Amino acid sequence: SEDTLESVQARIVAAGLEDPWTADWLETLCDSIGPRLTGSAAMDAAIEFSAQTMRDAGFDRVWTEPVMVPHWERGNEWARLTAPVEEELYISGLGLSIGTPPEGIEAEVMVVTGEEELEQRAAEAKGKIVLFYPEWKGYGSVVKYRGAGASMAAKHGAVAALVRSATNVSLATPHTGMMRYAEDIPEIPAAAVTVEDAARMARQAARGTVVNVRLMMQARNHEDREQPNVMGELRGRELPDQVVVVGGHLDSWDVGTGAHDDGAGCAITLGAARLLHALELRPRRTIRVVLFNGEEQGGYGGRAYKETHADELDRHVAALESDSGGFAPNGFSVRADEAVLERIKAYAASLGSLGADNVREGWAGVDIGPIVEAGVPGIGHRVK
Amino acid sequence: SEDTLESVQARIVAAGLEDPWTADWLETLCDSIGPRLTGSAAMDAAIEFSAQTMRDAGFDRVWTEPVMVPHWERGNEWARLTAPVEEELYISGLGLSIGTPPEGIEAEVMVVTGEEELEQRAAEAKGKIVLFYPEWKGYGSVVKYRGAGASMAAKHGAVAALVRSATNVSLATPHTGMMRYAEDIPEIPAAAVTVEDAARMARQAARGTVVNVRLMMQARNHEDREQPNVMGELRGRELPDQVVVVGGHLDSWDVGTGAHDDGAGCAITLGAARLLHALELRPRRTIRVVLFNGEEQGGYGGRAYKETHADELDRHVAALESDSGGFAPNGFSVRADEAVLERIKAYAASLGSLGADNVREGWAGVDIGPIVEAGVPGIGHRVK
Repeated sequence: SEDTLESVQARIVAAGLEDPWTADWLETLCDSIGPRLTGSAAMDAAIEFSAQTMRDAGFDRVWTEPVMVPHWERGNEWARLTAPVEEELYISGLGLSIGTPPEGIEAEVMVVTGEEELEQRAAEAKGKIVLFYPEWKGYGSVVKYRGAGASMAAKHGAVAALVRSATNVSLATPHTGMMRYAEDIPEIPAAAVTVEDAARMARQAARGTVVNVRLMMQARNHEDREQPNVMGELRGRELPDQVVVVGGHLDSWDVGTGAHDDGAGCAITLGAARLLHALELRPRRTIRVVLFNGEEQGGYGGRAYKETHADELDRHVAALESDSGGFAPNGFSVRADEAVLERIKAYAASLGSLGADNVREGWAGVDIGPIVEAGVPGIGHRVK
Repeated sequence: SEDTLESVQARIVAAGLEDPWTADWLETLCDSIGPRLTGSAAMDAAIEFSAQTMRDAGFDRVWTEPVMVPHWERGNEWARLTAPVEEELYISGLGLSIGTPPEGIEAEVMVVTGEEELEQRAAEAKGKIVLFYPEWKGYGSVVKYRGAGASMAAKHGAVAALVRSATNVSLATPHTGMMRYAEDIPEIPAAAVTVEDAARMARQAARGTVVNVRLMMQARNHEDREQPNVMGELRGRELPDQVVVVGGHLDSWDVGTGAHDDGAGCAITLGAARLLHALELRPRRTIRVVLFNGEEQGGYGGRAYKETHADELDRHVAALESDSGGFAPNGFSVRADEAVLERIKAYAASLGSLGADNVREGWAGVDIGPIVEAGVPGIGHRVK
């Protein structure tokens, strides 16, 4: 009997549901290599491990492509409330932040709800540690201060910046993430504090209590270094020059093991390509698995991919990214024109048994962003 | 018009709902005094603050009664995975645990699901750090290893004990709590690790990977010291010799500010008595607010109360405790005979507008436990 799209999809789904390979690979990546901060030695190990996986799986071609990436290191860090009482605070230095002097920084805390209040009270900021405590109205409402708060505060003479965790629910867990310094403004250390500690400092400031904090961060920005994206291909049987990119980012933050963000995306996409190969389902077009570097620091691997492949972007028929965590699949988020969207809906229909047939227009992913902007249809993995 | 039970209750509820006093007092206790570890200087400050509150509120009598309490201090503590990769672990040294030598302890980790597996593999335990990783089947299923795991492991020559956090859901937050050493078995340091880190070590051990951990704990058990329960009374108008005890425990663990456990219980019971006084509602019997000490280390304040008041326990008509956190009230958990239970149901009926009229038989509280065991009806605060 002849293969149909439906029969092939059914074979893939059935085999994938039985195969422990993907979860196994993710477990090894996260447990035995651990966090994979861009530029780190652990990321070097993860790159080699991933390339070896693709060679062992029998991909037609496995290689790496250089990316110049930031090399930020957290080092040790701690903070203490020193007034009105002595107490440990749980912090997470923000990615790319500078450290403090070795002896740390101790200063009074100025609590503001955001930029507007900071500007109104700008004269008070000099010599202070500014704590941004915006109301939670979703990730973006807090992340803007995580990203830009240090320079907003430094402009008025602050010596460090703190921001409440970019999360609504917390168990005294500070949320990490990236920040950026504006040009021509002094660089000051920046860290996230827990929702609970931020709320406490805000309550005390509102009562007129002087709140002092001592902050010690050994964070360092080393020289940028060359560290690659990892790539592997299954060559197309009919149109080998036409490329479908599929991948996730291999780098992670360092406060967990990056299982959800984005070890899972690497495992899922690598595992899917491996499964095709194991089932001897050679695709019509070339499938190129790309495990990107430097996503967390700002999409370095994605931009490098676009530059390196500028002359063949017109032969890219689609780019797929999985960077939504290792949850149950829900469908796809598509950035493409209406005709492409409709075709993807048709392809996805047979994934209804997995509950993964929900297709809608939307953001497809940071890593594939640059090539999607260049006109390649982008498909992001949605989860429940 | 004459006061009825219902009209008086309605006045109290209406006034309580409008009065910010209770939340305000809790905020000051937690934010400005902070964690109140039994035996600590912060607990001394909380005792003085509470007594002053009762004096300021105009209670008829305010006093303290000595309790001999343990004086455990956490100090600094940290742990690192040292094999198969180097990585920080989040730990919480268990209350009353000894510390490690100053240089710490480094050893291979032996993961067991519980006592049965430990006994079967006892020959392997010598020189190891034993990690108890029982399946979560509710708090008790894990707490038994938090409490007794160190001695179970030390019996077979282990050098330290770790236990997964006594929680089902975690955000890399280790849960603290108390442990106890068995007699005639060497004392070894004991700490909780997060659910995530415990799961990771268990996965690695299951694969045959050698897992090593370095543990450093400065924990110290100082000499027991005298530190009191705090007490205040509203004298009864008709039967002043008959006593209703109401309270919570003022001490807390030190990894948060003890707002829910049990600052809230102190605030609620103290606030309720204060409100009666402010509303000039002198009770028929004497209401005695007791803020207990040493609950977390094992109910020291409750036992001391019972001993000190042994000769008047027969004049105690009820003991109420709030130690369920500062959540919306749901009703009462009663440890008493059927007749008392029925009377409390009748009293609680008019709290239906608050959704606080659910009365059932059950555990009433650690602090009042000793006097309830002596025959006094016990009433615990239930929350939603």
